[in-house]
Amino acid sequence: MAAAPRSNCAINLSVELFGDRWTLLILRDMLFFGRRHFGQLIDSAEHIASNVLANRLKMLVAEGMLTRRDDPTHKQKAIYSLTEKSISLFPILVQISLWGHENLPESIQQGDEIWAVMAGGPKAWARFMDRLRETHLGAAPSQEASAPAGPAARRSGKRRSA
Amino acid sequence: MAAAPRSNCAINLSVELFGDRWTLLILRDMLFFGRRHFGQLIDSAEHIASNVLANRLKMLVAEGMLTRRDDPTHKQKAIYSLTEKSISLFPILVQISLWGHENLPESIQQGDEIWAVMAGGPKAWARFMDRLRETHLGAAPSQEASAPAGPAARRSGKRRSA
Repeated sequence: MAAAPRSNCAINLSVELFGDRWTLLILRDMLFFGRRHFGQLIDSAEHIASNVLANRLKMLVAEGMLTRRDDPTHKQKAIYSLTEKSISLFPILVQISLWGHENLPESIQQGDEIWAVMAGGPKAWARFMDRLRETHLGAAPSQEASAPAGPAARRSGKRRSA
Repeated sequence: MAAAPRSNCAINLSVELFGDRWTLLILRDMLFFGRRHFGQLIDSAEHIASNVLANRLKMLVAEGMLTRRDDPTHKQKAIYSLTEKSISLFPILVQISLWGHENLPESIQQGDEIWAVMAGGPKAWARFMDRLRETHLGAAPSQEASAPAGPAARRSGKRRSA
């Protein structure tokens, strides 16, 4: 963090890192929906402003939550990768989402694939995190992660609407 | 939420509810440290301003995260109670705290008792939530929650410092 933290409580430090109106949404789009380019991240449902997105991406790189490199397949475009630090937030984001679905009646399920992962419980979350590690960190797939997901993981799951 | 939400994504709605620089800290002080009066909550390590605290408490009551009543033991003082909706956030706050301890080296453990609960894993979290329900909702203690915690729950646990 740039400025001195308000306290060294781990929750406060976490809130100072990602507890603003936008940062968790950027991490959601990367962790849940595989977005990695500025042009994909700007296209969020919440209409993030481009200067806010640029600011938060810069901060997330500085904090070791993301890495940034040139994308060889897109000239002049950067590609962002998750780090172990941000991948390890995945279960927390899943649980925030599940809490929201349970407690905020206006919430609507978005994305069948990620819903199946969320509904699959901690083991499904761990497999998904292994896939993120393969994609973003170049980690070798673990035996479990490379197994086919099977039909159960593809069911559309419970839907909620307003 | 007062204004129209930016989207109906459950994470976005959750972020709109508690994803600001202060709300999660108020919930932390109530969930982890048993604070229930304005005068206790204003005394946080992060020096929350009184108008911000008053605003957030009002919002949390309006959102069904807290209830407010006169405290018969303190004339003219309101006492705030958690609701099932806010108590169910407890495991998420615990995991944010554990993530912070793991990933943010400047974090310092605060509170031996809550640390023992956090380190005790999901079963210890569930027992603690049952105690919160007894205190805040007047729920009858479950058999497990009323059992003595034993010496293991009182160990001071790992400490981290800057």
